[in-house]
Amino acid sequence: MNPGASLALMRERKPLVHQITNYVVMNETANATLALGALPVMAHAPEEMEEMVALAGALVLNIGTLSSHWVEAMLAAGRAANARGVPVVLDPVGAGATRYRTETARRILGEVEVAVLRGNAGEVATLVGVEAEVRGVESIGAGDDAAELARAAGASLGLVASVTGPVDHVSDGTQSAAISNGDPMLATITGTGCMSSAVTGCFLAVSESPFAGAVEALVAFGVAGEDAAGDAKGPGSFHVGLYDALAALDPATLSARARVT
Amino acid sequence: MNPGASLALMRERKPLVHQITNYVVMNETANATLALGALPVMAHAPEEMEEMVALAGALVLNIGTLSSHWVEAMLAAGRAANARGVPVVLDPVGAGATRYRTETARRILGEVEVAVLRGNAGEVATLVGVEAEVRGVESIGAGDDAAELARAAGASLGLVASVTGPVDHVSDGTQSAAISNGDPMLATITGTGCMSSAVTGCFLAVSESPFAGAVEALVAFGVAGEDAAGDAKGPGSFHVGLYDALAALDPATLSARARVT
Amino acid sequence: MNPGASLALMRERKPLVHQITNYVVMNETANATLALGALPVMAHAPEEMEEMVALAGALVLNIGTLSSHWVEAMLAAGRAANARGVPVVLDPVGAGATRYRTETARRILGEVEVAVLRGNAGEVATLVGVEAEVRGVESIGAGDDAAELARAAGASLGLVASVTGPVDHVSDGTQSAAISNGDPMLATITGTGCMSSAVTGCFLAVSESPFAGAVEALVAFGVAGEDAAGDAKGPGSFHVGLYDALAALDPATLSARARVT
Repeated sequence: MNPGASLALMRERKPLVHQITNYVVMNETANATLALGALPVMAHAPEEMEEMVALAGALVLNIGTLSSHWVEAMLAAGRAANARGVPVVLDPVGAGATRYRTETARRILGEVEVAVLRGNAGEVATLVGVEAEVRGVESIGAGDDAAELARAAGASLGLVASVTGPVDHVSDGTQSAAISNGDPMLATITGTGCMSSAVTGCFLAVSESPFAGAVEALVAFGVAGEDAAGDAKGPGSFHVGLYDALAALDPATLSARARVT
Repeated sequence: MNPGASLALMRERKPLVHQITNYVVMNETANATLALGALPVMAHAPEEMEEMVALAGALVLNIGTLSSHWVEAMLAAGRAANARGVPVVLDPVGAGATRYRTETARRILGEVEVAVLRGNAGEVATLVGVEAEVRGVESIGAGDDAAELARAAGASLGLVASVTGPVDHVSDGTQSAAISNGDPMLATITGTGCMSSAVTGCFLAVSESPFAGAVEALVAFGVAGEDAAGDAKGPGSFHVGLYDALAALDPATLSARARVT
Repeated sequence: MNPGASLALMRERKPLVHQITNYVVMNETANATLALGALPVMAHAPEEMEEMVALAGALVLNIGTLSSHWVEAMLAAGRAANARGVPVVLDPVGAGATRYRTETARRILGEVEVAVLRGNAGEVATLVGVEAEVRGVESIGAGDDAAELARAAGASLGLVASVTGPVDHVSDGTQSAAISNGDPMLATITGTGCMSSAVTGCFLAVSESPFAGAVEALVAFGVAGEDAAGDAKGPGSFHVGLYDALAALDPATLSARARVT
């Protein structure tokens, strides 16, 4: 786990991160990807799915504004990624809020080998069969046992679970890490969860393992959130400052700022 | 009519505001909703329409980038909202510019019980059968008689008409109010009309009546526009400042800043 | 070629610029259009294509997040624009990255009379049959011979080729211009290429010729980029400043700032 080294490698290699994401955050995740140092591409047409995935260093699937055609595109892209060894991140936005979201997230988990599942506590709890209160796409009252949730999700789903919240918990069922970087202002704008999934994709393209990449991504994104919060007058200026902060992340000092246990 | 008290209640209850809106402004209306203190959710799949509406305190329908599948989703969501007593806001973006927009807005008004119709003078005039010049989605030359237009629309359509412009006019055909809050800079960025519709949805979820909620929303949004304009160097910085200002709205002083007659 | 005079005319006439563009940048290109002084409209439903195009001073087609329904809309809009003499801009985002993008761009060029093809070197090279490396939607290693590429594209495709990069090259095969306005920060955010296409549409609606409009657009957009870069702390604040700078462009001094050879 070395976020600084991975960031330096990312900026050198500029991996393409293919994102099939929701309409609300497309601009935001593309700009976060660019600010960090990778290259985003948004593409969802079945006609180009295989070719685009073949160019990518990682694939990010996000069901935030899902509909049937988009779900088919995600499944096709996921299978193509698996066939080529391209790591896949799944963001199950709103799983638990409606059956369609829950079932779609489960279907993707069933048909695609997902490297990292990045969600809030309510979404991840839903997918491992734990009761959770999810209102719309916001998780309410993430319990104290998010660490155990991440461990259980990692073990039962056979992937790296990345459960974000006031403290983030990443686990593959065996190894676990808690990341305390970040700032409460990240919850004041829409799409920061989606951005953290996109940033996870960026790190997966260069990191030694999905577990390391998931942790490094949350460190980097959290540190940028801390930096952006310093100057912010509110959610609008925080949002702007977040891109400035992602671009200004210093590979030489990033690892020292990690608050990981 | 007490915008401060409604804002305080909104921040306490954090109602979910379900929005089926256009691609151009989804991020903007979601962030305006969050900045104000409510929770946005964007969802348009027929598979989840009923469940999502059932979670919501208000539903906002916006035809800014309409197509046939989205129109069906809006109708299904509107009917589900009516069945559950969830208030519906309609933003008839571009009605009058093309027959498809005019007919779709009329169809929604015919099949869904709309609580508040929030549009510019040209759009609302079109829907009550008055000749209006609409270019694309911009209303040109809103007449001096916007107060009468709001009253006529409220009476003939049986809803609260919320006609925004340099001065906003809200009427249910019997009660009427003119709101002078706001700033000309609101017209320099795209989506402020759509945001005012989203903010109207936020207030409908907590206000005593659709009329009160529609007025309170335009007061709150207008005051935020005034605050944002103070520091702005142009439309970009105004846009950023608008979210900061929405989040900084003070329930204790908001009602005193209302310019309503 | 007189960007100042064209900008003054644009702000006086406020032409409607119809854009069928990608989900990532819709808000951005709409706001750039408004900041410059024109009126944007995003519409893609076949039901309203002819009516909307008939209102427009220019049509911008952008294949950044293409799918089959959207491609049909672009073709229908393009044909309607041709029938009415409305100039068409094509932005072939990602041509060369996948066959679907290359073929779609070629199909539009075959079925629609395009006034200006605005792309990066890799995209334009692909469309004139030159080998190019395109990764996702980013052009890598635009050669030194972008001037010759623009000339060849203009001549062989029978249109104005507008090839943007560190130096922009515009050519109709006979007349050519190189524009050195701009700033490297324009490459740090997503959608600046798409914005330059939208701005090209704005100028086509008022300029004396597609060649003049294409050059004037890149001068105006480049000057705004220079102004925005001065105050920027990173990509987020640059993005915000870009709209402020577009709105602040001064018709009286713009032509004097053009660096065109």
